[in-house]
Amino acid sequence: MRVFVVFTYLSFSCSLLAQPKNPVHQFVNPLIGTSKMGHVYPGATVPFGMVQVSPQTNFIPMFLSDGSYNKIAYDYCAGYQYSDSNILGFAHTNFSGTGHADLGDILIMPTLGGVELGARSEVQDHGYSSPFSHATEKASPGYYQVTLEKHRIKAEMTATERVGFHRYSFPSSVDANIILDMVYNVYHHSEKNVWTFLRIENDSTITGYRQTNGWARDRKVFFAIRFSQPITHYGFHRYDNNNYKGFYRRFKEQSNFPEMAGKNIRAAFNFMSDSTKPVMLKVALSSVSCEGALNNMETELSHWGFDAVVQEAANKWNKELSKVEVDMMNDGDRVNFYTALYHTHLSPVIYEDVDGKYRGLDQNIHVSEGFTNYTIFSLWDTYRALHPLFNILQQKRNNDMIKSMLAHQEQSVHNMLPIWSHYANENWCMIGYHATSVIADALVKKVGDFDAKKALSACTTTARVPYFEGIGSYLSYGYVPDDLSHSSVSKTLEYAYDDWCIAQIANGIGDAKTSQEFMKRSTYFENVYDAKIGFMRPRMSTGEFRQAFDPMDTHGQGFIEGNAWNYGLYVPQDIPRMVNLMGGKQRMTEHLDSLFTMEIADKYIEKNEDITRDGIMGNYVHGNEPSHHVPYLYNWTGHPEKTQKTVRMVMDEMYSPTIDGLCGNDDAGQMSAWYIFSALGFYPVTPGSTTYALGSPLVVQAKITLPENKILFITAKNQSRKNVYVQEIRWNGAKLKSPFINHASLIEGGKLEFIMNNKPSKFLE
Amino acid sequence: MRVFVVFTYLSFSCSLLAQPKNPVHQFVNPLIGTSKMGHVYPGATVPFGMVQVSPQTNFIPMFLSDGSYNKIAYDYCAGYQYSDSNILGFAHTNFSGTGHADLGDILIMPTLGGVELGARSEVQDHGYSSPFSHATEKASPGYYQVTLEKHRIKAEMTATERVGFHRYSFPSSVDANIILDMVYNVYHHSEKNVWTFLRIENDSTITGYRQTNGWARDRKVFFAIRFSQPITHYGFHRYDNNNYKGFYRRFKEQSNFPEMAGKNIRAAFNFMSDSTKPVMLKVALSSVSCEGALNNMETELSHWGFDAVVQEAANKWNKELSKVEVDMMNDGDRVNFYTALYHTHLSPVIYEDVDGKYRGLDQNIHVSEGFTNYTIFSLWDTYRALHPLFNILQQKRNNDMIKSMLAHQEQSVHNMLPIWSHYANENWCMIGYHATSVIADALVKKVGDFDAKKALSACTTTARVPYFEGIGSYLSYGYVPDDLSHSSVSKTLEYAYDDWCIAQIANGIGDAKTSQEFMKRSTYFENVYDAKIGFMRPRMSTGEFRQAFDPMDTHGQGFIEGNAWNYGLYVPQDIPRMVNLMGGKQRMTEHLDSLFTMEIADKYIEKNEDITRDGIMGNYVHGNEPSHHVPYLYNWTGHPEKTQKTVRMVMDEMYSPTIDGLCGNDDAGQMSAWYIFSALGFYPVTPGSTTYALGSPLVVQAKITLPENKILFITAKNQSRKNVYVQEIRWNGAKLKSPFINHASLIEGGKLEFIMNNKPSKFLE
Repeated sequence: MRVFVVFTYLSFSCSLLAQPKNPVHQFVNPLIGTSKMGHVYPGATVPFGMVQVSPQTNFIPMFLSDGSYNKIAYDYCAGYQYSDSNILGFAHTNFSGTGHADLGDILIMPTLGGVELGARSEVQDHGYSSPFSHATEKASPGYYQVTLEKHRIKAEMTATERVGFHRYSFPSSVDANIILDMVYNVYHHSEKNVWTFLRIENDSTITGYRQTNGWARDRKVFFAIRFSQPITHYGFHRYDNNNYKGFYRRFKEQSNFPEMAGKNIRAAFNFMSDSTKPVMLKVALSSVSCEGALNNMETELSHWGFDAVVQEAANKWNKELSKVEVDMMNDGDRVNFYTALYHTHLSPVIYEDVDGKYRGLDQNIHVSEGFTNYTIFSLWDTYRALHPLFNILQQKRNNDMIKSMLAHQEQSVHNMLPIWSHYANENWCMIGYHATSVIADALVKKVGDFDAKKALSACTTTARVPYFEGIGSYLSYGYVPDDLSHSSVSKTLEYAYDDWCIAQIANGIGDAKTSQEFMKRSTYFENVYDAKIGFMRPRMSTGEFRQAFDPMDTHGQGFIEGNAWNYGLYVPQDIPRMVNLMGGKQRMTEHLDSLFTMEIADKYIEKNEDITRDGIMGNYVHGNEPSHHVPYLYNWTGHPEKTQKTVRMVMDEMYSPTIDGLCGNDDAGQMSAWYIFSALGFYPVTPGSTTYALGSPLVVQAKITLPENKILFITAKNQSRKNVYVQEIRWNGAKLKSPFINHASLIEGGKLEFIMNNKPSKFLE
Repeated sequence: MRVFVVFTYLSFSCSLLAQPKNPVHQFVNPLIGTSKMGHVYPGATVPFGMVQVSPQTNFIPMFLSDGSYNKIAYDYCAGYQYSDSNILGFAHTNFSGTGHADLGDILIMPTLGGVELGARSEVQDHGYSSPFSHATEKASPGYYQVTLEKHRIKAEMTATERVGFHRYSFPSSVDANIILDMVYNVYHHSEKNVWTFLRIENDSTITGYRQTNGWARDRKVFFAIRFSQPITHYGFHRYDNNNYKGFYRRFKEQSNFPEMAGKNIRAAFNFMSDSTKPVMLKVALSSVSCEGALNNMETELSHWGFDAVVQEAANKWNKELSKVEVDMMNDGDRVNFYTALYHTHLSPVIYEDVDGKYRGLDQNIHVSEGFTNYTIFSLWDTYRALHPLFNILQQKRNNDMIKSMLAHQEQSVHNMLPIWSHYANENWCMIGYHATSVIADALVKKVGDFDAKKALSACTTTARVPYFEGIGSYLSYGYVPDDLSHSSVSKTLEYAYDDWCIAQIANGIGDAKTSQEFMKRSTYFENVYDAKIGFMRPRMSTGEFRQAFDPMDTHGQGFIEGNAWNYGLYVPQDIPRMVNLMGGKQRMTEHLDSLFTMEIADKYIEKNEDITRDGIMGNYVHGNEPSHHVPYLYNWTGHPEKTQKTVRMVMDEMYSPTIDGLCGNDDAGQMSAWYIFSALGFYPVTPGSTTYALGSPLVVQAKITLPENKILFITAKNQSRKNVYVQEIRWNGAKLKSPFINHASLIEGGKLEFIMNNKPSKFLE
């Protein structure tokens, strides 16, 4: 059952194109996707902001007392689940849509009356949590509001790039408290803490830091907090199980002592409450130092005008999102579209202080010379459509992100580009070295001014690290042998694609030798194709294919988070060769038809975190990434009309303007980027090439402001729910003869016209 | 029983004054005081160097498994005890002479053959330790050598200011290993570790850091290590008890994986061994970052000339120590003298990178503008004679140390000057705020260019922090009430003295109001004197003296590490008033006579760590600091001859050129500074005044090179073992009429002549 929510934007006019100044950000509903597997957060942030201040709901520890893993914890990657009824507090860092958890720093919670932190010996006990009702919740980009019902406190928050700004309105004039919980982490809890440190700098300023050993195993977050009024009293409790208490025993440390330190501490700050005057606080972050955090605060947010900051945040969102103005068939689509666009502007996040200093992967402090440093690179996901989308809408940022990746590579002790990196750490999640794809895509699309020669060197160095995930044997055998490394087929396929990307970069700078080397590697996908059964299949170091093999199963079959039916179609660098290899266009069309329609047994679903019924269409999995390009493959089998029908079906079934509107993890924006492209009628099936596959737009019309203020108009004539087929496509008036269009054309601006119909057309070849 | 060691310097000529270029550092024996309570280390360092590379011997954990405290661990404050037979490795940071332990960073140990780190589940197990014999040990300033007998490895080490330099000669060509133990701490062991981090930067360079929660509860040490030859293989073992292992599980992390992290890790590095070619390594430290450590290494020690660095270190020592050239009655005295002088040049240590960056008390990175930053301020000890000695021999450094203290105060969340601080942490050990004394002493002696106004403000702010150690009630009551704060009499006495020091600073800058305020506070010692019993005595908040009171007991009697007999004589700021208060000169002379001769029951000794039979003369305790000024008090009672006899007796009985030659903790140089002053014939009884009390010199003659190359000559005519009395004293030819001399005179250079005799003289009034 889907929860439909009445949104205020329904009162808005639909005729966006006539009103280019319309605040499109108001069509965004941050609560969409906060249920089930979307893993997005509803809190306040600005586009690509370093601070994401967001409610954390009913916590369930990841590890149970018997050491077992609590699967439910997976729901809490963004700290919030819509079905929960309690808020634990508001944290300042949150992933958007990821498939693994971390962060949740600097949890703030207002309460009224007495605080007994010391009485709670169990760190799991969030005794100060409060019930809340969604009826009091308001979420829009850059602003979040909720009433904490236990003490009837109205909580509001907004943000600048590096500062979270809170406003708490208390109902009465008894003691107001702000709890600062340094124990809390987004799941897995106190196990993650390495050290916490707090200083009460003066009657209204706190600084401190936390170091955690979680997904990022060496993560340090520094912060500065300033209150709008003096602290009257404060104290803390340390939840450490450590014999050694240090030599501070001569002080009554627990009360009004301005230093606090330990592995697990919670502090409480008391204020004179006044029901007419809210308590506000600003929380600035830094990866560098407390001093850096304080400087970020003072530079970025020197005043106490909360409403003005809410407005500024809205303006920032509106500025970014209004680069794409769309007319849709209904408001539900419009909300889907702008919420998706919002999701694509949440991460990677800025990761440097206002003075350009940031903590590098080597844990040294660096200065970003000539770029802005970013973090959170979920590259196995985002290279597919998110970074290509940035090459249209956020070229400067994408250039900076690439420079951030190159800095990461320089700082890496492995000399490797990021795989899945966040907060000055590499977490090594998932496979491939897809930073190469992001770099190649930008290079062929002439985006940015990063050093291409240095980039090529970073890519080739990365692709040759023998101890990384079977690369050594991939090079020796021409494929990753299944007996030598897990997920052997997925790795072989992705390495081959990434190698093709490297060859494109080599081509771009005229390095024929490197191009040749990596073009050869890019053909290695052929080595894991078993023509006898018509599937990509795990192959052993003996040269034989593995005997036991189930192409329906997503576990232990040489694929990761996918099965051979889906993931086996992953040869974006040479789709014609793949089609030939797998039996030709007719055979591939049949394979795809089966994929989208076949029944799939429960046993293939139930073991999965990332693949649930919500995100499945037949055996096609839209809720996870490996087959995001698959609906567009019909364009290569002579059946673009099947692509058209399928992508419209996916848009209709897998995205909805509801709380559970995401069919799987948004994965740092990739799921939403797929939607943006598809709704506009084209998709980057092969990042690293300039070709987009044309699908079937969902928009009625769209106006996209390109770099240098060029304009791309997209129109869908005769657009309707039923008219999912494209009868004709015109580019600047000229009819297209194939279902593809080049980036170099689009990026110059112009008019892309789709004529829609309810019947397939065969005009395109 | 004392272990007498035959020293090589015995072959040297005694006529030093004739040979001013003589390498006086060769009279230093770093092994003196390494037995029992001296707590000094025998390893290699340069004067005030940031690195002290020194052997760590048989380890005994501080906390036993039942949670109880292992007293024996107190012996290991400097990581080494002469009576031990095993070396665990060589660490790079060590306190000299302190009464509490910390440090012991970056333990290095060479071994031969297989290494099985992983097999040792007990972190206490130092399976790679080696027996050693003192016969193979050579220790001189800046150089240490020993043979590790298990594998017959010759270990040598030397140092620059920020780099430890090791040379290991292996006896054969089987595999050589260097073990890097990041678990080890100077006692208390793995409990202290918060986090450790290592990167193998290339085939011969490692960087990393360690964070500990010990005496310094937030201590971070960054380092860089470079080997003289390529590492052939490496690995590590993590001794953490943590469910969460991070996401590096896809790698074989334990072997040749260039990142290592965890709470407790030990790494081993393998080398091609060649019996003709030693393995060398350089270990650079930084408080800032790994980058800082690497830069320190590359700036300070860019070559591999081990012997040249040994010679440079010797030259540095010789340069500092030869500022005082002495002729003594015998070589034993000479060794005592130069070893003591050496001990006074070990700490405070430089605490900044070559580029001036250092970690401040606020954990932010600062740059020392216009000074060199120092750390290790054991101020309850060192304000007495060590900093006054610096005002003669190390004016520039003392100025820098004061500037370091002022920076500390600025960075302190309490706005307080250091109490006992080390490595960007305040450990709050002992009482008083004696940085004020160091500042006052420098100011009245016109040493340095620190900002006196700022210094006064730092002092007054410190002296008014109400929650620090009873200051609040000290101000309310005019004394620290015994029922409100521990060690109430000691605190009252020391606060009163420190307040007098603050008044001197105020006088110095013409701030009459502040001077008046603090002069008044400086009289508060009178409020804890009980005329009825003739002792300083704990007083209650009711105004009554405490009933139960034993002036012989050092525990729970209102004093800390001392009893009323000794510590009750602590009024250096107004000795005449104290003498009057306590019954006049005759009564005080009798008190002192009793003090130095009375029998003391075992029950008063056995509970003490800092007061042992070795350091006691009657009831006078020389092995600890509070009564270091007491032998000179006879100068104020009309009996300077008793001072003369007593100080000679203390020098003879409490210092010897033997392994157990220190009668108590050297306390960061204070015990040795007492000796230097006394051997030269004068002592700063009241730091903060310019007056020295004259005693009885032990030197035959001395030549002291003062600032601006002025020369102070000291001669003791008719000097002998028996001639401990001074018959006459002349300053630049003029006979002195009182047993005092002013700093302002001495520091201009000149000739101080003592005529010695075997009978008391009454010439001085």
